[in-house]
Amino acid sequence: MEPFLTRHIGPTESDRESMLSALGVGSLDALTDAAVPRAIQVEGGLDLAPAVSEAQVQADLTRMAALNNPLRSMIGQGYHGTITPPVIRRNLLENPAWYTAYTPYQPEISQGRLEMLLTFQTLVADLTGLPTSGASLLDEGTAVAEAVGVARRSQRKGSVVLVDAGILDQSLAVMRTRALALDIEVVVTDDLVAGLQRHDCFAVVVQTPAADGSVRDLDELRTIAAKAHENNALVIAAADLLALTLLPAPAEWGADIAVGSTQRLGVPLFYGGPHAGYIAVGSGMERQMPGRLVGLSKDRNGTPALRLALQTREQHIRREKATSNICTAQVLLAVTAAAYAVYHGPEGLRAIAGEVARKARRLAAAIVAGGGELVSDRFFDTITVKVQDAPLVVREARAKGVHLWALEEDLVSISVGEDVTEDELAAVASLFSAHLGEAEHGSLGQPERETPYLTHPVFHSYRSETQMMRYLRALSDRDFALDRGMIPLGSCTMKLNPAASMEPISYPGFANLHPFVPLEDARGYTEMIGRLEAQLCEITGYDRVSLQPNSGAQGEFAGLMAVRSYHRARGEEHRTVCLIPASAHGTNAASAAMAGMDVVVVKTAPDGTVDFDDLEAKIAKHAEKLSVIMITYPSTHGVYEARVAELCGKVHEAGGQVYIDGANMNALVGLAQPGRFGGDVSHLNLHKTFSIPHGGGGPGVGPVAVREHLAPYLPSHPVVRDAGPVSSYGPISAAPWGSAGVLPITYGYIAMMGPDLKLATQVAVLSANYLAKRLAERFPILYTGDAGWVAHECIVDLRPLTKETGITVDDVAKRLIDYGFHAPTMSFPVAGTLMVEPTESEPLVELDRFVDAMHAIADEAARVKAGEWPSHDNPLVNAPHTLAEVAADEWTHPYPRSAGGFPAGQDLGGISTGGRDKYWPPVARIDGAWGDRNLVCSCPPMEAYAD
Amino acid sequence: MEPFLTRHIGPTESDRESMLSALGVGSLDALTDAAVPRAIQVEGGLDLAPAVSEAQVQADLTRMAALNNPLRSMIGQGYHGTITPPVIRRNLLENPAWYTAYTPYQPEISQGRLEMLLTFQTLVADLTGLPTSGASLLDEGTAVAEAVGVARRSQRKGSVVLVDAGILDQSLAVMRTRALALDIEVVVTDDLVAGLQRHDCFAVVVQTPAADGSVRDLDELRTIAAKAHENNALVIAAADLLALTLLPAPAEWGADIAVGSTQRLGVPLFYGGPHAGYIAVGSGMERQMPGRLVGLSKDRNGTPALRLALQTREQHIRREKATSNICTAQVLLAVTAAAYAVYHGPEGLRAIAGEVARKARRLAAAIVAGGGELVSDRFFDTITVKVQDAPLVVREARAKGVHLWALEEDLVSISVGEDVTEDELAAVASLFSAHLGEAEHGSLGQPERETPYLTHPVFHSYRSETQMMRYLRALSDRDFALDRGMIPLGSCTMKLNPAASMEPISYPGFANLHPFVPLEDARGYTEMIGRLEAQLCEITGYDRVSLQPNSGAQGEFAGLMAVRSYHRARGEEHRTVCLIPASAHGTNAASAAMAGMDVVVVKTAPDGTVDFDDLEAKIAKHAEKLSVIMITYPSTHGVYEARVAELCGKVHEAGGQVYIDGANMNALVGLAQPGRFGGDVSHLNLHKTFSIPHGGGGPGVGPVAVREHLAPYLPSHPVVRDAGPVSSYGPISAAPWGSAGVLPITYGYIAMMGPDLKLATQVAVLSANYLAKRLAERFPILYTGDAGWVAHECIVDLRPLTKETGITVDDVAKRLIDYGFHAPTMSFPVAGTLMVEPTESEPLVELDRFVDAMHAIADEAARVKAGEWPSHDNPLVNAPHTLAEVAADEWTHPYPRSAGGFPAGQDLGGISTGGRDKYWPPVARIDGAWGDRNLVCSCPPMEAYAD
Repeated sequence: MEPFLTRHIGPTESDRESMLSALGVGSLDALTDAAVPRAIQVEGGLDLAPAVSEAQVQADLTRMAALNNPLRSMIGQGYHGTITPPVIRRNLLENPAWYTAYTPYQPEISQGRLEMLLTFQTLVADLTGLPTSGASLLDEGTAVAEAVGVARRSQRKGSVVLVDAGILDQSLAVMRTRALALDIEVVVTDDLVAGLQRHDCFAVVVQTPAADGSVRDLDELRTIAAKAHENNALVIAAADLLALTLLPAPAEWGADIAVGSTQRLGVPLFYGGPHAGYIAVGSGMERQMPGRLVGLSKDRNGTPALRLALQTREQHIRREKATSNICTAQVLLAVTAAAYAVYHGPEGLRAIAGEVARKARRLAAAIVAGGGELVSDRFFDTITVKVQDAPLVVREARAKGVHLWALEEDLVSISVGEDVTEDELAAVASLFSAHLGEAEHGSLGQPERETPYLTHPVFHSYRSETQMMRYLRALSDRDFALDRGMIPLGSCTMKLNPAASMEPISYPGFANLHPFVPLEDARGYTEMIGRLEAQLCEITGYDRVSLQPNSGAQGEFAGLMAVRSYHRARGEEHRTVCLIPASAHGTNAASAAMAGMDVVVVKTAPDGTVDFDDLEAKIAKHAEKLSVIMITYPSTHGVYEARVAELCGKVHEAGGQVYIDGANMNALVGLAQPGRFGGDVSHLNLHKTFSIPHGGGGPGVGPVAVREHLAPYLPSHPVVRDAGPVSSYGPISAAPWGSAGVLPITYGYIAMMGPDLKLATQVAVLSANYLAKRLAERFPILYTGDAGWVAHECIVDLRPLTKETGITVDDVAKRLIDYGFHAPTMSFPVAGTLMVEPTESEPLVELDRFVDAMHAIADEAARVKAGEWPSHDNPLVNAPHTLAEVAADEWTHPYPRSAGGFPAGQDLGGISTGGRDKYWPPVARIDGAWGDRNLVCSCPPMEAYAD
Repeated sequence: MEPFLTRHIGPTESDRESMLSALGVGSLDALTDAAVPRAIQVEGGLDLAPAVSEAQVQADLTRMAALNNPLRSMIGQGYHGTITPPVIRRNLLENPAWYTAYTPYQPEISQGRLEMLLTFQTLVADLTGLPTSGASLLDEGTAVAEAVGVARRSQRKGSVVLVDAGILDQSLAVMRTRALALDIEVVVTDDLVAGLQRHDCFAVVVQTPAADGSVRDLDELRTIAAKAHENNALVIAAADLLALTLLPAPAEWGADIAVGSTQRLGVPLFYGGPHAGYIAVGSGMERQMPGRLVGLSKDRNGTPALRLALQTREQHIRREKATSNICTAQVLLAVTAAAYAVYHGPEGLRAIAGEVARKARRLAAAIVAGGGELVSDRFFDTITVKVQDAPLVVREARAKGVHLWALEEDLVSISVGEDVTEDELAAVASLFSAHLGEAEHGSLGQPERETPYLTHPVFHSYRSETQMMRYLRALSDRDFALDRGMIPLGSCTMKLNPAASMEPISYPGFANLHPFVPLEDARGYTEMIGRLEAQLCEITGYDRVSLQPNSGAQGEFAGLMAVRSYHRARGEEHRTVCLIPASAHGTNAASAAMAGMDVVVVKTAPDGTVDFDDLEAKIAKHAEKLSVIMITYPSTHGVYEARVAELCGKVHEAGGQVYIDGANMNALVGLAQPGRFGGDVSHLNLHKTFSIPHGGGGPGVGPVAVREHLAPYLPSHPVVRDAGPVSSYGPISAAPWGSAGVLPITYGYIAMMGPDLKLATQVAVLSANYLAKRLAERFPILYTGDAGWVAHECIVDLRPLTKETGITVDDVAKRLIDYGFHAPTMSFPVAGTLMVEPTESEPLVELDRFVDAMHAIADEAARVKAGEWPSHDNPLVNAPHTLAEVAADEWTHPYPRSAGGFPAGQDLGGISTGGRDKYWPPVARIDGAWGDRNLVCSCPPMEAYAD
């Protein structure tokens, strides 16, 4: 049977031979010897278990899934039982057309998921009553922290945030981590009204319903909001969206910002994640909002079209002045939640909420009738019961197949999810010697919601499974994902997401586990996580790994917090300067700012490397205060810098730490270990190097890896103590192991590749150099190493073309869509260029197809230059061409339709292009600026589309 | 939570209200009271368990799957362990774009699966060495029987078929069932050469490798073939395709026909089915070959295009003179097997076969070294060992996690599949006190194959997972399936295939079970099958059901064999006349012929009902010899005939039995029970009424249901005795419960609908009447019941339109593709008409979209009549329009491009049409006759496509 590596690596052995020979290199080893500095190369291969087959890894993961024991979770605490409709699981969550898509930065080829994200935003905006919702945040904990950040930036007063004692433990802890570095004081109180009198706070955070399930009186909430506003403080509601189908919207009682999780809208528990957090803000705060925002605009023909709005406020442009370091989102989970709302509609959601609430009241009635005492009679789905010995009750419940929660030593909390059965409810009642009947006790605690929600037709049009299936298909057909062709995005590593390791995340043992179950019920996860940590340590050369950060940027922040904690522990809290090369990812600077550091930029030398003279000067200047340098290796220019070890040495000499950004780890695995050649800490991107799909724009997973001296400062967790060291500053993410639910993908990938991971890296480097060499026939390639080799990506310089012909990087990127490609990374790290990363998974035929397309585009530009086509009306500036244009009755352009729509003809090879299999973008080039000027971020009435 | 019925039924309650009001009917009950004859209506509802939710049915099926105990199957006997590549499972087997497609009778919108079927045919033709392979048969057993039928028809001599004693038990038994009614004598012998001297046979059947695993000497095979040919007998090889990657092809030693199973090419064991059988024949026998055949032709523009070839030899045209009653195929499984071959390529398949064979030889060496004795030293993957007590060894193996096979009391057979691990192999060795090493014993028994196979580029181009994923996506994108829009095929009931009951067929407990495991290891299946049988009895009003027939036609044959057996048991073997109305499905007559009956046709009255006078005359004429009448109810005209009970009574009076074809059961469930209003026997189509997907042209499942007096004559099974009555004539299919693997779909569907199945039927009838009424504005509707109502489908008469405008039924059908629809059933049961069946699952918006399209087509035809467009060049005769035509530089038609390609504009509603989501056929109208004249049925060289 074919080993998995032959399935994962695109170019076959004979393809690789011919690529090597095109490069004039004798072997893969010779190529890497030439490209990778000898000083950092590892001796021998990776000390990983031998590669196993797809069948073996699935058997292994099946065994581990069976070691998890989900029972029925009635734990709540931010993670609720829900039922993923099978039509959504099969056609969306498990469908490569959805999960292998990239972030919708090329909106013309992303209209399907953008429409579902707009639906997500409408869902959140409607239920919270606030006008503008983002397209998702990473989880509820970070959403609360981000909201506090928004308030801080908006109000610019005081340093106190007043927090409801009813807040979820993990949200409070994440907020405290963030507050640490920003000198924010977190004051927790039962009595918010009194608190508002005592403290000059910039914001107050209210959890509703509270962690114990209790719901505040509406008048009380109004009083809190009024007092806060009197004091010029913002009100942040952390609210349960399902509860909001029955309870008045936060905006109705005065909240300015609402945040929370959308997990219980059809997204599996996943042992804590990935789930989509949400944030919605009041008018005027849109531009302060962190994360992504989808908005309506129009294309060049005036057709309504969606795209990401207000991107100028994001980290990749604003760097340390960005609203946040958030770079990814949770698109796959957000669209799942949106699809759940579309499928159920407002009546359906209200019915589910009503059923959950009624079950909670029936349980309450039984317990009260049996002599039990509740903490509150005002609740939605969660009741808290006073008991003698809460852990004992929890153990008894476990014996009956239900997980409950010991909120305190004498308080048991019981949360009813959509998935709880009558038998389970009765079993819980029996724990209290109570008998479940039809009687109800307690109430919602607020008048029932009267304001309408989900009135848009999208929430009323796909109620049968047939319609839903067709809608999901139609949306995915509008998008270009890896299941159609190459996505050669530099720095993003769009490689294969193997079905063999994707399937296991749906195994019930992995999908249905609550993150707070006793560890004895999570032995499968514990084993898998332990193995994965060991695999990653071996690959990186570090000593310890934390899987908690649920994005690369969170990994950066975690790593910088470790550095910060380390210096402080040594009494060197004055070390706050963070050196960052000019070419760094924008998140680096944003993360450093979040960690309370002062960013100092190091220049880039003309050859693209770090300017060593400037580096030495900056080190000298800031030696006393030097905390850390953040570098990316290979550099963001796609080059293995020869002097990296020397650079690390210099920083260490000055008492600084070295942070090596792992974004480009796909060029290192098996060749060099950042933990050995000078790094103290790195984050990895499992969604890049380690095969987790990008999900159309998330989930991401950003583990942080450290050398032993930083291990005491890895993230911890307030609830699950085993998830991190006691000496930690706290958690980075809400869940103990972050996005645990997708970790089987990486575990499986590494297990199936084993030491052959090195070969994958070598082929990734081979393919990049092959592309560089062939593209160099027509375009300058910016930056190579000393020996003339690039690493795993290359930068194609389009500035000469633009200068000569007027054809811009935008034109080329959009024209590539006509040729059946996703554009490479645009204008990063150098404006006017394309950064191309083929990865090891793309077959040679696809690489050649890409080169041919780029050469053909150069020819087209030459015709513009030659005056054959006018500069304002040619196939490049009009790209991408839609079917509606090319097949329209009228055609007014000076070039034929075929040159517009079928530039590759039928004979360019590859199965994703040519006439019959060609991908057509549903809209033409989008005018983003128009949309930013006319911001519409929730579903407009259908008529708006009819224009 | 929404009950499943709201997901299954397309029109919402308020839609149903408006549809009823359009019909002028007060309620659904009033409509069915008016349409369904009072005499046959059931009182009260269905006595089924209350409907359960999707989550409940999945919990229930999860529980049952866990009651099955697959262990590692080393049983063999026609069913082998194999590994389904996850990329194929996820992107093909579990993908609605593949499994919800219909049979490719409309080839323009089926090019994707037709390409994969051509690949299947090439695979089979290459490995067997025979030039023409069919597109799959139902299983190996029926394939052997069909091959015997081909030989009988070709040779027209003698009545003896000589059969290798090494044949699989189930193949022999199925062949014997078929032989019974056709006066064929089956002679089984060890010594075929001697047998050929003794018997004047028309065919000889050789199993290779034999059931005990032994492989005959090549010279011996050549001798058998030579002798057979001398005697003018054909040679049929039942051959294992994986073995043929190493052994000489049957054609090389003289076989004329090859048959077998393709299950072990990546298709799960499925407890016996569905699997794709294969047949390949020598030159000159193509037109005798049963089942479907895909061939290359060209479209109206000369573009190469695929379609079903030589359809005139099939049952729907030739009726009782057809080559077979085979009506469906096993497309979903055939394309899975073909995809497996594409993914592995010839080297991969040879490597898998080599590994399997080497493991068998290592096991043999261990056993022989330990003192064991083998039946043969010449084997591929299966060794048979002489033991004291075979059942004891099998039990011991079971205790070690492996299922072996007791071939005889003193013979244990051990078959090595692709999925067997080293540990399992060692465990088997240990049963014989042997120790597994690297030594090998035994040999293939034939010189290794030298002739090449799978040389076509398709077997060499998709070797990485990325390429395979893209290829599967591109193929599915070429096809129109239920995931894009309505498939309103009369008599085919293309309804929802719910994801909630599709998912469970992939549960390992259902997917990985061998059909011959001890029943104690199949308790989940046993429970599910028992429940399903009871559900079907309640729905049909019959007393017993057999789930064995794996197609509707097989169900017909089983039913007629029951009737035949019943008459014979009563000493009335002279009853051989089968009355069949003129409008019957062609399979009815073909099945009757197969059951040895004499078909007598009963006329159709002008109103479409059975001509009662003619019926009475035919009964009178054939009273003595009357065996059975086969009717369809509601009739194939889509009408509830009022006098059905009377008709049944008359037949019974004459001593005949009544067979009610269940093809139209979707109009009866919950309203009337054929087992109560006069039927003695019916078959059902689980792939129509009961939600099993059509799979792009199979699998079908055709259970046979009978009243108590016929129960002794339901099918049985030679290996699994519990599968049928001892008094049976034998098996119909190879596997004891036929296509057991897909039965969870129907079980789940019925469980989720419960007594609401009646509502589904009522809505199906409502939707058909709504369509009939709205279509009647422009087209005559042929046939309605006495009160003017149709049943669940209606016949749109296009003959007046054709007469007036020259626009044919073909033109309308193909034009509907431009409007985004699959055509309705064409010219059945009445030439020049379309039969439209909407089912209950289509939403009102889609029904209206269809009506609007039909009205628009009538307008277009009127313009042709008016001379506005020439009769040889208009949007109807040129339909369907491809994208390549509509977007071409040149456009020469007298109507605009938009009228050709976008007839529905953007505003016809529904998400499957309009500009951006429109489905485009990859080829234009296909010239089928040209292909039949120039028959090409395996992959032509790529250059052929380049013309």
